[in-house]
Amino acid sequence: GDAAAGKAKSAMCAACHGQDGVSMVPMYPNLKGQKEQYLISSLKAYKAGQRQGGMASTMQGMASGLSDADIENLAAYYSGL
Amino acid sequence: GDAAAGKAKSAMCAACHGQDGVSMVPMYPNLKGQKEQYLISSLKAYKAGQRQGGMASTMQGMASGLSDADIENLAAYYSGL
Repeated sequence: GDAAAGKAKSAMCAACHGQDGVSMVPMYPNLKGQKEQYLISSLKAYKAGQRQGGMASTMQGMASGLSDADIENLAAYYSGL
Repeated sequence: GDAAAGKAKSAMCAACHGQDGVSMVPMYPNLKGQKEQYLISSLKAYKAGQRQGGMASTMQGMASGLSDADIENLAAYYSGL
């Protein structure tokens, strides 16, 4: 993915996951330096409604607006932080 | 949770998630320094079968053998790395 495009797309993520991918809220996972493939897999699972429990419903709403390219770019951005 | 008890329990996790919680495999998330509450929430979601896709079925098997105390101890251990 394209990390720069990911950064541009990440404004809506930063609200919960922190400006640098380290969240201030115990329930929201850190994304900074996470595995790129895992980030893609998780976002696609949320988008496909394959996750319930915890904040899954919130994340499903967030992910539903993302294209596969957005997902790959966001994963490139956060994994590279 | 009790991080020392979590460390003792983490042998089966280390195979995929790495000795220090940094995995060598793109699809396996890093656990080192992740949010404690998020780790608990995720493990409970896997245990309750609330996650599909990716490695979820493998993780469901792993989590099914864990008690709530195990889950809290593992979360304390990995979040503290």
